Amino acid sequence: MSLVAIVAGLALVEYSVFMVMAGQARGRYGVAAPATTGDPTFERYLRVQQNTIEQLVVFLPALFLFARHASESWAAVLGVVFIIGRAMYARGYIKDPARRGPGFLLTITSNSLLLLGAIIGAAIEYA
Amino acid sequence: MSLVAIVAGLALVEYSVFMVMAGQARGRYGVAAPATTGDPTFERYLRVQQNTIEQLVVFLPALFLFARHASESWAAVLGVVFIIGRAMYARGYIKDPARRGPGFLLTITSNSLLLLGAIIGAAIEYA
Amino acid sequence: MSLVAIVAGLALVEYSVFMVMAGQARGRYGVAAPATTGDPTFERYLRVQQNTIEQLVVFLPALFLFARHASESWAAVLGVVFIIGRAMYARGYIKDPARRGPGFLLTITSNSLLLLGAIIGAAIEYA
Repeated sequence: MSLVAIVAGLALVEYSVFMVMAGQARGRYGVAAPATTGDPTFERYLRVQQNTIEQLVVFLPALFLFARHASESWAAVLGVVFIIGRAMYARGYIKDPARRGPGFLLTITSNSLLLLGAIIGAAIEYA
Repeated sequence: MSLVAIVAGLALVEYSVFMVMAGQARGRYGVAAPATTGDPTFERYLRVQQNTIEQLVVFLPALFLFARHASESWAAVLGVVFIIGRAMYARGYIKDPARRGPGFLLTITSNSLLLLGAIIGAAIEYA
Repeated sequence: MSLVAIVAGLALVEYSVFMVMAGQARGRYGVAAPATTGDPTFERYLRVQQNTIEQLVVFLPALFLFARHASESWAAVLGVVFIIGRAMYARGYIKDPARRGPGFLLTITSNSLLLLGAIIGAAIEYA
């Protein structure tokens, strides 16, 4: 499981970068804690981070369950697709919220395949 | 662990449905990204999704730790209770925020038992 | 892995306490669901909970991956540092958002070491 562990680790590094970017945007656009609104550009950075959490909640368990119950190498491939999709999503969203589509699609496709494969693999094992 | 993997997978499918519902509500009630406020009905859908994340953060690790350190079949039972509780919570909240109580209670009861059981089981093993 | 399971369980108990505190603050400061803004003191409690989720998303997988691919006892030590850091963060933030620094620093230091160690450990195993 060390290959999938590396992929999961890199996805968390990417997420950590989004956290740092949102933190810096808080300072740059003058939104003092605990406020989370007040500047639309800051809100984009915050939404990139928040949306990544929303996706990671599915991605991380689905990645490991897929690796355990279906295929570890395919888990790694789909994991890399997820990481690339998130980078595209962040780049697009920060330029213009209307351009967050392609990256978003890539990550939910990867997540859906991981989740479906994990459930099917576990169901076959259980049967 | 394949039974618990199926239950975890189904909980993530349920959460994915809440994500899609919140995304559709964004369009239906005219709340353009990155805003997260502006229409109280949209905010209900968003809160259902957000609150489910808040609970999943406990549920997923507690489910697997309970299965490993206490009992896999009881983990599966409590996991199904969680999934049913979340469905009741979502239905209730969207109709009327004041009616989110029973489903919420069911999920935190399931979460508390999973978490407590996992800690006690691991402590007994460690001792 | 029972030692790390106990530490993860305690971190989730701490997070559950933050959830209960935010729920009580909702009542005490009169912010009816689904609103998440309206009273700055309530917002502090909510931000403590939200920020803890943001950190747990890294902490929990990194803790277990570090334990599996690097060292279980060091994972437990860093996990305890995380739990202490979060308690300091919550105490500081609720008194005054400007005083959330030291606790925050402690948790991201612990998270960074866990994440880095997990990736390096898994990479050495894979190589």
